[in-house]
Amino acid sequence: MNTAVHTPVTLADPDTPFAVVDIHPMRRNIARLKDRADGLGVTLRPHVKTAKSLDVAALLHSGTPCPVTVSTLAEAEAFADGGYTDITYAVGIDPHKLPRVVALLRRGVTLRLLLDSPEQATFVAEASRRAGTPLPTQIEIDCDGHRGGLRPEDPALPEIGRLLHDAGCLDGVLTHAGESYFAHTAEEQRLAARNERDTAVAAAERLRAAGLPVHIVSVGSTPTAHAAEDLTGVTELRAGNYVFFDLVMAGLGVCRVEDIALSVVVTVIGHRPEYGWILTDGGWMAMSRDRGTAAQAQDQGYGLVADLSGHLIPGLVMTAASQEHGTLTARDGADLPHLPVGTRLRILPNHACATAAQHRGYHIVDGTRRADPAPAIEHVWERVTGW
Amino acid sequence: MNTAVHTPVTLADPDTPFAVVDIHPMRRNIARLKDRADGLGVTLRPHVKTAKSLDVAALLHSGTPCPVTVSTLAEAEAFADGGYTDITYAVGIDPHKLPRVVALLRRGVTLRLLLDSPEQATFVAEASRRAGTPLPTQIEIDCDGHRGGLRPEDPALPEIGRLLHDAGCLDGVLTHAGESYFAHTAEEQRLAARNERDTAVAAAERLRAAGLPVHIVSVGSTPTAHAAEDLTGVTELRAGNYVFFDLVMAGLGVCRVEDIALSVVVTVIGHRPEYGWILTDGGWMAMSRDRGTAAQAQDQGYGLVADLSGHLIPGLVMTAASQEHGTLTARDGADLPHLPVGTRLRILPNHACATAAQHRGYHIVDGTRRADPAPAIEHVWERVTGW
Repeated sequence: MNTAVHTPVTLADPDTPFAVVDIHPMRRNIARLKDRADGLGVTLRPHVKTAKSLDVAALLHSGTPCPVTVSTLAEAEAFADGGYTDITYAVGIDPHKLPRVVALLRRGVTLRLLLDSPEQATFVAEASRRAGTPLPTQIEIDCDGHRGGLRPEDPALPEIGRLLHDAGCLDGVLTHAGESYFAHTAEEQRLAARNERDTAVAAAERLRAAGLPVHIVSVGSTPTAHAAEDLTGVTELRAGNYVFFDLVMAGLGVCRVEDIALSVVVTVIGHRPEYGWILTDGGWMAMSRDRGTAAQAQDQGYGLVADLSGHLIPGLVMTAASQEHGTLTARDGADLPHLPVGTRLRILPNHACATAAQHRGYHIVDGTRRADPAPAIEHVWERVTGW
Repeated sequence: MNTAVHTPVTLADPDTPFAVVDIHPMRRNIARLKDRADGLGVTLRPHVKTAKSLDVAALLHSGTPCPVTVSTLAEAEAFADGGYTDITYAVGIDPHKLPRVVALLRRGVTLRLLLDSPEQATFVAEASRRAGTPLPTQIEIDCDGHRGGLRPEDPALPEIGRLLHDAGCLDGVLTHAGESYFAHTAEEQRLAARNERDTAVAAAERLRAAGLPVHIVSVGSTPTAHAAEDLTGVTELRAGNYVFFDLVMAGLGVCRVEDIALSVVVTVIGHRPEYGWILTDGGWMAMSRDRGTAAQAQDQGYGLVADLSGHLIPGLVMTAASQEHGTLTARDGADLPHLPVGTRLRILPNHACATAAQHRGYHIVDGTRRADPAPAIEHVWERVTGW
C-alpha cells in the first residue's frame, strides 16, 4: 500500500491531473484535533471517509490502529484487513448489508452499526440471534434536523433501545451536527457543539432512565470538534475532513488556507486573453463538481490556485470546469499572471472529501521544503474505492 | 472485460449503491444518432468519455472499432488496447503528454491532437521531427465563447496552420458548441448547430485560402448533433452523452426521460416523516455533486426516482445529498410514497458523464422486461479510470 518511490520524481513528473497531499499541514491538522480530544477527555474516532487511506490513517495514532469511523463497508473491510478492530459504520443500516457485517464480526472486528427505527432494530436483533453474536449498534440521534436520527424526546427512542438491549446489541448513541457546516461564526460553531453534546447526552440519559445501559455517547463534525468547549457526558468525538481540510472549512474559519493538505496538480493548456481566461487540463473529473463555497461569503469557485511549490497565486481562482478543462480567472482587480502552456499549478479544493474521491490515490510531498520549485514525491498512497 | 454473470442475479442482489445501464434505451439512443449522421452524410465519431467502456463502445458500430473521441490518454490507451486505431484526443495538448502520444502512434494508432496556439504548434512540430513521424493535429476553433479555441478570423489561425502543415501535422479543424447545453429550445439548438457548422467551415476555408489543406472538419455536442439540419462542409460529427442521456438533456428536450439509460440503485435506510424525507444510502459519492438541472426551468434536484424495474415514481425527487446519504422528497403536491427500509430504488442522474465517473462499472439490464420487479443483471461492464 505504502509504495516507496524508488526513482527520484517530483511534482513535475507524473502526467496531470493528479492529487497531492502535503504531509506537513496534514500532520499539524492531525495533532491539533488529537490534542483537543485529549484536553476534552474524550476518545477521538477519526472518520476515514475523507482520505480512505490506510497510510494516512497510520499517521492518526503513531502507526497503530485506533478507533475509526467509516462511511462504507468497503472501508470497514479494508481497515479490518489493515488491522483495525474498532470500527463504527456511521450510515443507517440496510438489512441487505448484514451478511458482510456478520462476516466482519466473525473476524474479530467490533463493527458498530447505526439505526433510527424500530424496524431496523428488529432486523438487527433477529440477525444477532441468527448469528449467535450480538451486532453492536448505536441509535442515531438528530441534533439539528440535518439528516437522519431521532430527537431525544421521540417515543421510539426507548422502544428501539429496549429492542436492541434485549438482543445484547445496545451500544450507545451517536449524533452528527451536520448543520455546523453552515455555522458561519466561531460563536455559532460553539453553540452547534454545545447543542450536539447536549442532545446526545439527553438521549443517553433518557435511555438510562428507562433502565437501558448506554456505554458510548458519540458526537462530532469537523466544525464542532474544533469548537467544543465542554464534552461532559460524551465518550467519543468524530471528525473526518480535518485531516486534509479545504476551502469550505477555511471559509468557516475552522482552519487557515495554509492548513489545506490536499490539492490537485494541473497543467496550463491554453489562454483566452479576450475573456481573461487561462485554461488547464484539470476539470470537474479532477476536482469534483462540489461548489461548497458558493454558499459562503467568499465564493472560491472550483478552487484557489497555487504554484507547484504550494504558494498561492494572489487573486487567481478556478471559476469554471468541464469534464477535463478548468478555467482560471483573476479577481479583485488582480492581473492575470503570465503562465505559459505547460506550466503546472496546484488547485486547492472546495471539499476535500469530494475531490479526493475523484482520484485513485495521493502523491505525498513535504511542504516544509517550499523552496523547491517542484517538490519531491516521497510516496504514492492508494485510496479505498467502491462500496 | 465483458464479464458474463454465471449465477443468476438481479438488481435485488448487489449491495447498494451501484450503477445500472439499461441496454434497451441505450441501443435506441445509439441507433438514433447513427441514423442522423448517415442522413447528414458525415462520419460519426462518438466521444467515449461518458461511458468509458469498451463494452458500450462495441455497440456503437456493430462490434467493430469505429472512429472515437477521447478525453484522456488513459482512454486512448485503453481503446488502443481494444483495437481502436482512429482516435481524437479532444483536449488541448500539453507538451508533457507527448511521449505517450508518440508511443500510441508507434503502435499504429492514428491519435489526433488538438491545440489552439503557435507555441503548441511549435512543440508538436518539433516532437514530430524528433519522432520521425508527424503527429496528426487539429486546430481548435471557438464557435461560441464556451472554452478554448480560435475564432476563424484570428490572425494566429493561418500561422498555426502553416507551422503544422510544414511538419506534416495539419489534419483539420475541430469545434464544440459547448454553449448548446444552455440552448433551451429546439430553435436555439438548431441555431447553435448552424453556428457550429458555419464557424468550423469558415475556419477550414480560411486555412484553405492560405494554401493549407484541411481534411477533417469536425463538429459536435449532444444537443447540436441532434439538431443539425445541414452539415455541408463538415466531415465528422462528435457527441458523447447521447449514449446514456440524462436529466439535463431531457430538460433541453434532446431526449425523453424514458431514453435515460443510466441510473443508480440505492436502498431506503430511514424516514423523517416530520420533514417529508425518505433517506437512502445513495449520496453524492454515488450520484456526483453535479446539479446541472439547477440552471433549467425544472430543477430535478440530484435526480428523479424510479422503482427497481425502472418505472418513475411520480413526484419523488432526490433533493439533497451528503457523502453516503440521499434525501428524497415529494413535490407538486404528490404524496410521499410508503417505501419501507430496505426498498431499492433507481435514481436517474442530472449528468450521466459525472454520475458514471463515480462508479467502477455498470450492471447491465434489458428494460424491455419491465414487468420484472427486479430485472436480471445480464453483464457487469468495467469503466476506464484515471488519466
